[in-house]
Amino acid sequence: MVETMKVNKGLAVKTLEDGFEVSFNHVLLLRHTVQQPMLFVGQGEETIDMYRGNFDIKDYVMERTPLKYARVEEKNNEYMVELAKSEGGQAVLLLTIKEEDSRLKVEYTQVDSAINRFWLRVAADQTEKVYGCGEQLSHFNMRGKNFPLWTSEPGVGRNKNTYVTWQADVKDKAGGDYYNTNFPQPTFVSTKKYYCHVETTAYADFDFRNPNFHELQIWEVPKYVLFETAETYIDLVEKITNLFGRQPELPEWVYNGVILGIQGGTEVVEEKVSRALDRGMKVAGVWCQDWQGKRITSFGKRLMWNWKWNENEYPELDKKIPEWKENGIRFLGYINPYVAIEGYLYKEAEEKGYLALNEQGDIYLVDFGEFYCGVVDFTNEEACVWYKGVIKENMIDFGIDGWMADFGEYLPTDVVLKNGVDALIMHNAWPTMWAKINYEAVSEAGKLGEVVYFMRAGYTGVQKYCTLLWGGDQSVDWTLDDGLASVIPAALSSGMIGCGLHHSDIGGYTSLHGNKRSKELLMRWSEMGAFTPMMRTHEGNRPDDCFQFDGDEESLEHLARMSNIFVTLAPYTKAIVKENAKRGIPVQRPLFMHYEKDEKAYDIQYQYLYGKDLLVAPVHQESQTEWEVYLPEDEWIHVWSGQEYKGGSVTVQAPIGYPPVFYRKNSEWKELFLALSNI
Amino acid sequence: MVETMKVNKGLAVKTLEDGFEVSFNHVLLLRHTVQQPMLFVGQGEETIDMYRGNFDIKDYVMERTPLKYARVEEKNNEYMVELAKSEGGQAVLLLTIKEEDSRLKVEYTQVDSAINRFWLRVAADQTEKVYGCGEQLSHFNMRGKNFPLWTSEPGVGRNKNTYVTWQADVKDKAGGDYYNTNFPQPTFVSTKKYYCHVETTAYADFDFRNPNFHELQIWEVPKYVLFETAETYIDLVEKITNLFGRQPELPEWVYNGVILGIQGGTEVVEEKVSRALDRGMKVAGVWCQDWQGKRITSFGKRLMWNWKWNENEYPELDKKIPEWKENGIRFLGYINPYVAIEGYLYKEAEEKGYLALNEQGDIYLVDFGEFYCGVVDFTNEEACVWYKGVIKENMIDFGIDGWMADFGEYLPTDVVLKNGVDALIMHNAWPTMWAKINYEAVSEAGKLGEVVYFMRAGYTGVQKYCTLLWGGDQSVDWTLDDGLASVIPAALSSGMIGCGLHHSDIGGYTSLHGNKRSKELLMRWSEMGAFTPMMRTHEGNRPDDCFQFDGDEESLEHLARMSNIFVTLAPYTKAIVKENAKRGIPVQRPLFMHYEKDEKAYDIQYQYLYGKDLLVAPVHQESQTEWEVYLPEDEWIHVWSGQEYKGGSVTVQAPIGYPPVFYRKNSEWKELFLALSNI
Repeated sequence: MVETMKVNKGLAVKTLEDGFEVSFNHVLLLRHTVQQPMLFVGQGEETIDMYRGNFDIKDYVMERTPLKYARVEEKNNEYMVELAKSEGGQAVLLLTIKEEDSRLKVEYTQVDSAINRFWLRVAADQTEKVYGCGEQLSHFNMRGKNFPLWTSEPGVGRNKNTYVTWQADVKDKAGGDYYNTNFPQPTFVSTKKYYCHVETTAYADFDFRNPNFHELQIWEVPKYVLFETAETYIDLVEKITNLFGRQPELPEWVYNGVILGIQGGTEVVEEKVSRALDRGMKVAGVWCQDWQGKRITSFGKRLMWNWKWNENEYPELDKKIPEWKENGIRFLGYINPYVAIEGYLYKEAEEKGYLALNEQGDIYLVDFGEFYCGVVDFTNEEACVWYKGVIKENMIDFGIDGWMADFGEYLPTDVVLKNGVDALIMHNAWPTMWAKINYEAVSEAGKLGEVVYFMRAGYTGVQKYCTLLWGGDQSVDWTLDDGLASVIPAALSSGMIGCGLHHSDIGGYTSLHGNKRSKELLMRWSEMGAFTPMMRTHEGNRPDDCFQFDGDEESLEHLARMSNIFVTLAPYTKAIVKENAKRGIPVQRPLFMHYEKDEKAYDIQYQYLYGKDLLVAPVHQESQTEWEVYLPEDEWIHVWSGQEYKGGSVTVQAPIGYPPVFYRKNSEWKELFLALSNI
Repeated sequence: MVETMKVNKGLAVKTLEDGFEVSFNHVLLLRHTVQQPMLFVGQGEETIDMYRGNFDIKDYVMERTPLKYARVEEKNNEYMVELAKSEGGQAVLLLTIKEEDSRLKVEYTQVDSAINRFWLRVAADQTEKVYGCGEQLSHFNMRGKNFPLWTSEPGVGRNKNTYVTWQADVKDKAGGDYYNTNFPQPTFVSTKKYYCHVETTAYADFDFRNPNFHELQIWEVPKYVLFETAETYIDLVEKITNLFGRQPELPEWVYNGVILGIQGGTEVVEEKVSRALDRGMKVAGVWCQDWQGKRITSFGKRLMWNWKWNENEYPELDKKIPEWKENGIRFLGYINPYVAIEGYLYKEAEEKGYLALNEQGDIYLVDFGEFYCGVVDFTNEEACVWYKGVIKENMIDFGIDGWMADFGEYLPTDVVLKNGVDALIMHNAWPTMWAKINYEAVSEAGKLGEVVYFMRAGYTGVQKYCTLLWGGDQSVDWTLDDGLASVIPAALSSGMIGCGLHHSDIGGYTSLHGNKRSKELLMRWSEMGAFTPMMRTHEGNRPDDCFQFDGDEESLEHLARMSNIFVTLAPYTKAIVKENAKRGIPVQRPLFMHYEKDEKAYDIQYQYLYGKDLLVAPVHQESQTEWEVYLPEDEWIHVWSGQEYKGGSVTVQAPIGYPPVFYRKNSEWKELFLALSNI
């Protein structure tokens, strides 16, 4: 043990009687003693079953051994640590602890190749809170729970106590739970004002249940773990996005109004848009996911998954797109990283050898719910080039200005990939690879900043490659775990780790097991959508069971008004989107990001600051005419009534059309906010 | 490593290159190598929540280390094994392997006191099957699953895919799962013809999922593990009951007919019995659980839990009991090991200090569902004497000839007991202690063989102390996991480990979440009951929602006929009950017990041999008029039609009243069986 003691800024390693402590910029991060070791290693045998993107993952941990005995050596302010199971025993793991680019970096070298389970304890305080781990839909503050990190379907219902979840589980193994997400990431932010990032794509499970440590389980020895500290949360997200990258600004046209999710062909589009415009709706575009054809399954309306204009479904679309664009209406499409066996793309990919294989050397077919697809193998550089070509030629060149870049979570763990890496390791990497394909296709076409694609799947690195997140497939209901409300913690958690642009399907998506979208839900959702950087409606998986934006005059007028609010707000929205592009400060922010001293702010997950100057508290329950809002200490003006508030819990009138929104009295945008009340 | 090699009968320890193998009577039982160690030890931190007898048990395994390195020494054919984590490292566990009383005994001595988790691997074959582990309601052959062993409520529904289970879980945390049971026991029988018993009362989880080993997890270092082998399963159960003890024979009066479960007072009893007798029903007794009073809760009709004749509820019962006995009708009551706070017994126990305490030193009150009770502390010898006195004075002396000795599973893990032992260790011990109280009360009163009490809870040793098992609280439905069918594997599994007398509530008990007992279910259940050693009806928790035996003329006549079948069969039943008392051969036996060569027989869990000469295949589905039965190769006569069968799958007519029952053509009891068809 080296006898060193550093109290300066930067890395400090302090020797203890039978161990050591590692601090960084005065924040205690690691603590190791023989009695309380910081590292455990072992061996596990997992069993993983996938059914349509829902994973049943079990682990049989054969061995979990504490590495109690550490030998530390210092050299040029780098610490080499040898960890052994027994005193004087052989080292099974080597650590290098050093400062690099103002970050604390702990590198791991595996000596014993049998290790495939790794548990690291990060020092914690009892009162500490943690955020991030990708896009978390149920819990923004993750303390008190564990979070398996594995990209998957988020589940239908996501709460074992609800009837919808139970039905989804029994019928489709699809109920999910609080931690299931399309976008996990082994990165979290602590209220000790540091972030911690584990560099791995293996299955992980971050356990925040213990009072004195966070235990990070990873199914490999990770390459390294990074920590970085900051004085404020604003600085911290800036540093996080220095590491992971930032989204570009959104195209100008996005601010022109709502993007209407429409299916059913050219004629339907024209009818619906014309009806909307007649009511004074501001329409920025139409999003037609069935531009490449559709199919009907027991789940509902599904798409053809052969990524090319379907002339039968959308006659004359080639002529209509420029015509509509002329009139200020952009056309948005849909693509995902799989190709259906019926399509020409599948045949082409099959011939060229671009599809992932099974263990028998045949093409691996994935069941997407009554139809089968090949997986384009993104570990094959030629396949990437080819798929980017599909995006460029069939979509961008065709005039499509945006799309949903769906899926990315379904990589089976027994698929055989070109790069020879175990699919267990590639599974979590897939969403970012998929994002990168989109990013490169768009930038190679010279369209960055003009085209926008939105994704639900994500993982480390998606920050740089995904132009916009969407919250995935919520149920068309009021539940906290899977309905309207769940979108808010989703935006906040992904924002904390560098994905600062978020929006959701207005009205939600999943209508199953008796859930049908009500008019009220649709209207409340569009009220929230007006205070996100993109407004976009979705018909849902069962359009006939769901109330639609043009369901009646009232709903049309309501959306028209919301689209005008969105457009009026655009200069402010653009400014905060620009802040995100420049500094990585998310557009939707937790209250504590600007009110660090407000202890209550740290547990609020169904309200957000929209930029610095607006506070939004969406009504996420049925049949409410007023709503209780928590305001941090400041001078707040209620947008609709002009009433001034100081702080604390206040109850405001919140009838349909008037979501609880407040602006800071001293905002430079005051005039703009005042204008909202006249719409 | 000692170089020994034994191929003779008895203990044989064979040295391997880097380990050893232990066989007993040529059966390979333990295999240890550095690569595949047989023992793992570690530390865990459990969290245990109990809600009305349903336990939520979680374990955080901090350490699980293989004990790879063994040093073996032989001395007088006893093997001392030192097991260490590292080569040449300090021993953390000592084993003594020896033969004792024709059994293989492996004793464990804990060197490292920090160990509180223990995993032992017993060598297994891929095709091997295992049975036992107490009373298992869902799976007789346990291979392919793990079985937590912790006495608890068995659950309502017991299958996460059923609506009843989901409702029970959501409303009462009471849904349960396939392994939940009132009577677990760390003892199993293998088709390699050995039994394995672990001497412990700690929480355990026996995992039979692995192809090459059974992994037995125990939350302590157990005192010892026993193995014994036999040539036949009959010999094996005899040896098992040599170890654990055997039930005495049942009282003669039990064979006189059905015991009617009646509540509501003296008058109701007389009316119901008289109506039954009028229809020619054979009635051996009435079982009135509300003899000590009742209360109504949201669950249904519950009892007063103050174990003394309730004169308001049962006026003149003191005079009626002898009068009824004179007429051949015995009176049965009810007791359990808790005393309700409202009763005089609670006050008495409180004064004498006989109740278990909480950590603050106050009386620990257990929530039994809208009422609270004290736990009589059976680790206090004086409390035992007192409670035996209650049984003797208030029940036996009062003329009660039998009772349900209910519960025993609810010992909270944070209760403070007189003997100072952790309640985590005493929890599983409780059912046997409760059985022993009953046993000693009866034998001290000189009434063994005249009085019968029936229990649902059990654990190691209950074999000797429990005069009769009852299958617990089934739901009043046709489900495999919690309905009529579940009683059969329950009888078979408990029979395999020495509890050879089993019966169940005719009609089932639990009517919740929309479940209501149908007439058909009641009739099918009584058909099965006629082929068990005691016939007893139950009104259920919600009598008004459940069809009762006297619900109409047809059901009265049906039960009357079944009671006559039961009485006609009595000489045979008595003979097999005697076999159980003498040799421990269970009354209800799996088919393979007499047909060892029949491979199919090993997976049949919804049929049983009733003694050697009858095969019973209860109809456990609704609306059946015929039933498929598997017959092992023999000469079988269908009781009702007289038709002869050889073996294999046969389908027989099975209308209500004619359960599929077959007798062996060459049985010495042929005349008796022939008589059944005339009833």
